[in-house]
Amino acid sequence: MAKVTPTIPQGTRDFGADEVRKRNFILDTIKTEFELYGFQPLETPAMENLDTLLGKYGEEGDRLIFKILNNGLDNSEKEKEARQGFEKVLKGKNDKAITERALKYDLTIPFARYVAMHHTRLNFPFKRYQVQPVWRADRPQRSRYREFYQCDADVVGSDSLFNEIEFAIIYSKVFYKLGIPGITIKVNHRALLSALAETCGDLKYFTPITVAIDKLEKAGIEKVVAELESKGLNKEQIKIIREYLDIQGTNKNKIKRLEELLGKNENGRRGIADLKFVLSQQDLLLDLTLARGLNYYTGTIFEVTPPADLKIGSIGGGGRYDDLTGLFGVPDIPGVGISFGVDRIYDVMEEMKLFPAAVHIGTQALFFNLGETESRQAFQLMEELRDMGIRCEMYPDTVKFDKQFKYAEKKNIPYVIIIGSKELEEKNCTIKDLRTGKQESVSFDMLSAYTFK
Amino acid sequence: MAKVTPTIPQGTRDFGADEVRKRNFILDTIKTEFELYGFQPLETPAMENLDTLLGKYGEEGDRLIFKILNNGLDNSEKEKEARQGFEKVLKGKNDKAITERALKYDLTIPFARYVAMHHTRLNFPFKRYQVQPVWRADRPQRSRYREFYQCDADVVGSDSLFNEIEFAIIYSKVFYKLGIPGITIKVNHRALLSALAETCGDLKYFTPITVAIDKLEKAGIEKVVAELESKGLNKEQIKIIREYLDIQGTNKNKIKRLEELLGKNENGRRGIADLKFVLSQQDLLLDLTLARGLNYYTGTIFEVTPPADLKIGSIGGGGRYDDLTGLFGVPDIPGVGISFGVDRIYDVMEEMKLFPAAVHIGTQALFFNLGETESRQAFQLMEELRDMGIRCEMYPDTVKFDKQFKYAEKKNIPYVIIIGSKELEEKNCTIKDLRTGKQESVSFDMLSAYTFK
Repeated sequence: MAKVTPTIPQGTRDFGADEVRKRNFILDTIKTEFELYGFQPLETPAMENLDTLLGKYGEEGDRLIFKILNNGLDNSEKEKEARQGFEKVLKGKNDKAITERALKYDLTIPFARYVAMHHTRLNFPFKRYQVQPVWRADRPQRSRYREFYQCDADVVGSDSLFNEIEFAIIYSKVFYKLGIPGITIKVNHRALLSALAETCGDLKYFTPITVAIDKLEKAGIEKVVAELESKGLNKEQIKIIREYLDIQGTNKNKIKRLEELLGKNENGRRGIADLKFVLSQQDLLLDLTLARGLNYYTGTIFEVTPPADLKIGSIGGGGRYDDLTGLFGVPDIPGVGISFGVDRIYDVMEEMKLFPAAVHIGTQALFFNLGETESRQAFQLMEELRDMGIRCEMYPDTVKFDKQFKYAEKKNIPYVIIIGSKELEEKNCTIKDLRTGKQESVSFDMLSAYTFK
Repeated sequence: MAKVTPTIPQGTRDFGADEVRKRNFILDTIKTEFELYGFQPLETPAMENLDTLLGKYGEEGDRLIFKILNNGLDNSEKEKEARQGFEKVLKGKNDKAITERALKYDLTIPFARYVAMHHTRLNFPFKRYQVQPVWRADRPQRSRYREFYQCDADVVGSDSLFNEIEFAIIYSKVFYKLGIPGITIKVNHRALLSALAETCGDLKYFTPITVAIDKLEKAGIEKVVAELESKGLNKEQIKIIREYLDIQGTNKNKIKRLEELLGKNENGRRGIADLKFVLSQQDLLLDLTLARGLNYYTGTIFEVTPPADLKIGSIGGGGRYDDLTGLFGVPDIPGVGISFGVDRIYDVMEEMKLFPAAVHIGTQALFFNLGETESRQAFQLMEELRDMGIRCEMYPDTVKFDKQFKYAEKKNIPYVIIIGSKELEEKNCTIKDLRTGKQESVSFDMLSAYTFK
């Protein structure tokens, strides 16, 4: 029977050795930094109850959740329920007879669910980081996948602005350690947008103003103005918003202008005071056009961008929120968090060729297989090398030199070690560095002291 | 609106910091060992095409696969197809109009799919390890979960028995490094079971013999005999099998008896020769009652058991197979692989209290927050400690001593560091070891040289 070559689902990826190592270089750098700042790991299941996820991501988000089909639908006793449930599914609704579970769509809602479940036991302020895949039934396109890693850290149960400062430091240190130059860490405050709405006459303008400003970078000021007009804002109001958006200069100048424009408003004063505190400690760019769209942020907001010429969007973002777990019946847990855009960071590092050479090396030395007696000697020497932490392997079969060389080359193994009958007799092995072609003889006794670069 | 406290799906688990660190201690130990032996990481998506998985795990397995409901079933143009598809689902079948994708059920089939997809490009012998969660819609019970990690390594494209020896060494080194005493690595060979079937008169007895022997440990010899009788084996045949099962003594004695019993059979000779080679290199227990049930193994088989008094079943297993990818239309790729039972290893280590103390420590030092000026000083000192790799944090809010102490205790932070106005003036901080109660004064300059144990 002819079989068809198998494929994988659209929008998903296999990660080979080189990709796993490169991705782990990024993830390990981030995790290590989170831990240096007192964040502890949390892992939640891939599946959540569908109820936990539904209604948290807007109508469009709900549609992009991957739902798990219930097992055992062939149970004839439950056929009626299943049929009724399926009718609802056909109408775009969900029904527990058909699906009760779904794959997680982000890390925030599972985190909120975890905190709500365990809030009586948790040690607040609770600092956790979480690095796990999430799934979205999005239309696959360049750099957008249906399965991708998210990488978040949050502190909940603390109002202190020191948390904001710490996150700004973490951003700057992680990108420094990854070796990515030209990073900009932008900061703004959602209370300024509230103040702006109130200065325009009504807090109800908060959402249209935020949504419009969020499009500024991509769409330009004319389209933002048009959108504001379409939402019913008049010329006078739009003038105020343009004045706000036109604020330029150093952070200090911007703060000064903000004080003139929004300093009489309570929200304005709060936003300005918070920003002054945060900016006092860290080299951040106050970007008043930063809005972070339709989400739950209520305080300081962050966004990180790579060098503009790469044309890769933001590689990190976050902010403060008032109420993480209210949706799950546990009110008054404020917090602040950031996330790293792992796929885009990977793309930036690829594009700028920033991955260190060591990341591409798995096995450091290949022992050639020249027969059983030679192999047994190799086995013994390999154990000595492994005790020194050297990753090595022997070609398992006795095949031609050429084939063994090719194997080493294809696997990007820098050293080959040859033990033939002559070497066996002289208790020496021949080490060849495939990168330079340099060859030397090293006695068996000294091999474990050899420096494999 | 009153909200219900959320839950997680049955059979799934949240992993808090301590659990993540303990599990990572196990996983990192295994991964490091795999890499020391030349294995490279592979990660495949959580989802596979349903076609890839169906029919690979038997009828019962198919039923336990978590299937993903297709998105967009409310598309009225496709309503007819969806209804027809759902009728099939109600009859226990699958239909692409309802579900095309599923969560992976193990790591072997996705690995086989990967090798089949990429076999023309891969560098054979291909050595990969894979550590990822898998999902099974099993009835949840003690130590059986619906989401759990598997941890596999395989070499494919090599017949060499050095691979078997290497896996035996890896088993022994990993359990040594984890600190688990009293491990037994059992080995046997499936060709001996073929030889036994042939000695009973027909290779067709291979499956009933294998299935029956597999139950020996749990059910006892009488039940095994009864099962063999029920499968149509007569007294004479059962006598041969009992003779085989009764073989005792040292590995050497067992080999000698095997040679007498099965040495005239070709399969018998192959099994004995392979076992002699493998046993010559490594301290293994030849266990002739090891069968490894209904699976694809064709050569050497392994099973690892912890000390018997723990009453925890096998914590590892594997073996050689002839044909990994035949199911996907790519024949003649033999291989050998092993896996570690991560959840059970975790249970063994918990039960025997084997996790090292360091695993329970996340943050190493907590700086108390005694006001803004003090905090800014703490921030500076923390950066110096972090540069030395010390994980530290400051309590973000200025609250009572007592509350900050409790936070440190609950988070199992061994050291607290106090900088009050007096310390600030004297440029000293007070370090207290919460485990011993010991307290000392260290100057700001010397803090980064302090040894945090």
